[in-house]
Amino acid sequence: MNEQVQIELKKIFNSRFSTSESTRANYARGEDTFDPVLSQAVVFPETNKEVSQILKICNENKIPVVPFGTGTSLEGNVVGNDKGITISLEKMNKILSINIEDFDCRVQACVTREQLNDYLREDGVFFPIDPGANAAIGGMASTSASGTMAVKYGTMKTVITGLTVVLANGDIINTGSRTKKTSAGYNLTNLFIGSEGTLGIITEIQLRLSPVPESIMSAVCHFPSLKDAVNTAQQIIQYGVSVARIEMLNKDQMEISKEYSKLKDVEPLPTLFFEFHGSELSNNESIKIVEDLSKENNGSSFKWAKDLEERNKLWKARWDVYYSVKALIDNGRVYSTDVCLPISKITECVNFAEKEVKKFGLRAPMVGHLGDGNFHVLLPYDPSKKETYDKIRKFSDLLIKKTLELEGTITGEHGVGLHKKEYLLKEHPDNLPVMKSIKRTIDPNNIMNPGKIFDLN
Amino acid sequence: MNEQVQIELKKIFNSRFSTSESTRANYARGEDTFDPVLSQAVVFPETNKEVSQILKICNENKIPVVPFGTGTSLEGNVVGNDKGITISLEKMNKILSINIEDFDCRVQACVTREQLNDYLREDGVFFPIDPGANAAIGGMASTSASGTMAVKYGTMKTVITGLTVVLANGDIINTGSRTKKTSAGYNLTNLFIGSEGTLGIITEIQLRLSPVPESIMSAVCHFPSLKDAVNTAQQIIQYGVSVARIEMLNKDQMEISKEYSKLKDVEPLPTLFFEFHGSELSNNESIKIVEDLSKENNGSSFKWAKDLEERNKLWKARWDVYYSVKALIDNGRVYSTDVCLPISKITECVNFAEKEVKKFGLRAPMVGHLGDGNFHVLLPYDPSKKETYDKIRKFSDLLIKKTLELEGTITGEHGVGLHKKEYLLKEHPDNLPVMKSIKRTIDPNNIMNPGKIFDLN
Repeated sequence: MNEQVQIELKKIFNSRFSTSESTRANYARGEDTFDPVLSQAVVFPETNKEVSQILKICNENKIPVVPFGTGTSLEGNVVGNDKGITISLEKMNKILSINIEDFDCRVQACVTREQLNDYLREDGVFFPIDPGANAAIGGMASTSASGTMAVKYGTMKTVITGLTVVLANGDIINTGSRTKKTSAGYNLTNLFIGSEGTLGIITEIQLRLSPVPESIMSAVCHFPSLKDAVNTAQQIIQYGVSVARIEMLNKDQMEISKEYSKLKDVEPLPTLFFEFHGSELSNNESIKIVEDLSKENNGSSFKWAKDLEERNKLWKARWDVYYSVKALIDNGRVYSTDVCLPISKITECVNFAEKEVKKFGLRAPMVGHLGDGNFHVLLPYDPSKKETYDKIRKFSDLLIKKTLELEGTITGEHGVGLHKKEYLLKEHPDNLPVMKSIKRTIDPNNIMNPGKIFDLN
Repeated sequence: MNEQVQIELKKIFNSRFSTSESTRANYARGEDTFDPVLSQAVVFPETNKEVSQILKICNENKIPVVPFGTGTSLEGNVVGNDKGITISLEKMNKILSINIEDFDCRVQACVTREQLNDYLREDGVFFPIDPGANAAIGGMASTSASGTMAVKYGTMKTVITGLTVVLANGDIINTGSRTKKTSAGYNLTNLFIGSEGTLGIITEIQLRLSPVPESIMSAVCHFPSLKDAVNTAQQIIQYGVSVARIEMLNKDQMEISKEYSKLKDVEPLPTLFFEFHGSELSNNESIKIVEDLSKENNGSSFKWAKDLEERNKLWKARWDVYYSVKALIDNGRVYSTDVCLPISKITECVNFAEKEVKKFGLRAPMVGHLGDGNFHVLLPYDPSKKETYDKIRKFSDLLIKKTLELEGTITGEHGVGLHKKEYLLKEHPDNLPVMKSIKRTIDPNNIMNPGKIFDLN
């Protein structure tokens, strides 16, 4: 970054433009396995116009930018750029409008999912997408995130109907609409969702909300083997029962979560966590079928989380899985796989993962959003031990190969970032030329989070 | 088209390449208001490879192509090109695979929605997207179609997880996946959905299916005024009741449909058609609420369509609305508006439309997918009377203006085609440069259905 650019940005942003090493270090990576990379500066815009000013200057000077939300992404999506500037959106954290009667709202990029739900608490509606972390909604849009309730409520693609995006040249565009559907030209909204900041910076998100269900019921069921648990989930989906969540934790993860989250009343056995959203009548109908299917697969009796506090504790433990695994090793990192498969293939793939990971002698807690066919193997390691990382990557290579054989995808919800560029080449070799040509035309100077998702050359 | 190209295509396609006037006339327009435009030839490929061969030849020779499905689109999307070739996909009508346990299937572009549902009849699953016409699924993907059940099952965007697309240069690419979700790079699937053949030709579609509900119940309710009917629908959605269909027909349309579809037991009054999908218990719960809300808005008692035959007749009448209006005038055409609004604005907009259309002295049957905020004013006219068309267009201009003021969209489900290019400029002036740059990079010779959605220059 030349001196002139520094002076220019300093003049506009004053104390909101920082080149201090400590600040730059705070925005040097997400929750991924990469070593931090310090950008040359960090800037903190507050408005669409300010984001536009930054991009115009950077584009004219061909300076790379890295958009940064809460830094909770897992694939290296926000690792810094040593020739560029990191744009922290943390000051763009306002809820812009709520329309309860239309079940929609508009938020700035760094409103987090918990912040939004706290705000909506009295309104009878909620925002149903819940990745583990308390992520920024802009970041969740950028990685096309989902979470534990996608089986009922869908993913970020389902709930976003429009965006404000600032393009590399500084243009500010509003895509989509407040309406539930539209066929008005190319679907730019869905092009920017999942583009991980490589095509533009998402600064505002138009979201659909869901009515808080009349009745919410949570239950836990243990199984003697992981296979039994996965079979049960597969059969529930194939039966078409309405569930809001079916989360799987393997034995290893249950042991870790029981200790980390101080869970009582659960056994360190392969487990399914269920949640049902509906009327009391319809929930009871669904539960009866789910209980029967669980029993047929050797499941334990259901344990009910009856009150709100108990239920929240249970789901908090589920969301904290990543942190529980990370805490196993001092200064440890976690490599999380993210494959997603057709439901009929999930048992075969989970069994494959369990068997293969043992061959490498790795500790391998697992969690799965089984309703969507998506599961994660969470592999903790000490970053100073390269040989462990190499083993993990070898296991991951095998899992990706198996997943693609079973018509799955390399990533269900975390995105590609730096981690999965070579895997993306395996899944979509024929799509990459089109992706790259779109990238080149929208960001001709390749300043937008370059090197993420794919390499241009 | 130069002679060499003709010879080349004739050699490959033989009798499946036609330059006869009668064939060309059969593929010269859809169900829109435009005069037919005959392409120079029509070709009937049977495989992805054949589509690729055609596009390669046309791209090298800069010959425009118009992809054609069942020709049921309403906006001029498939009007021919007098310098180009129309590619009829009607021979690509095979169901390629069905996976009942994963609720998915893969079809060629010209499988129609009824063909697919007939095929699935014994399997306990169905394809829930139902525009009026028995459209080709490839065409429905190209216009981002929906229909009467979008309120429960979503639109083509919701049910498509992957595509095979042939690009202008002949490249055949497979986007997306069989999985329920993926974050693997740019969402090309959703870029091609709704691109109306301007970026590539969709030849295969990977679809999610839905389980046939345990119980389906249909009812009809009459209202003294359209406002009462629309208010009821608005309140049902705002209440969060689970309905599979809420279709509105105004008085004029009810009179027309009663006669055209020989409906007994319905009154020529503003009417809502309802359908409920679920278990018997949950349907009864929903119906109770809907009946109460209807009564509060001066609705009649519910009339139940109890058996399958009666129900099918009712919905057939609904799907045939377009044809019922078209039949009003010998050799008549129908101009259909397609605005879609936030639910809270739908009453205001429908009232506006009713009031304004009367000022022009136009007959204006109306139908609405009110659960989505989408309604159509169907304006029949004699194409030899230009002044009627001019009045219609003036009314349409006013309705579009009002819709955009109310934060609606110019098209809920029909697409842009030739009809709405100037309206698209009003809704998304800032998006058009991005759409055009994508078009230029993917189709540099502008051979793919040129002049549809927007003009490049």
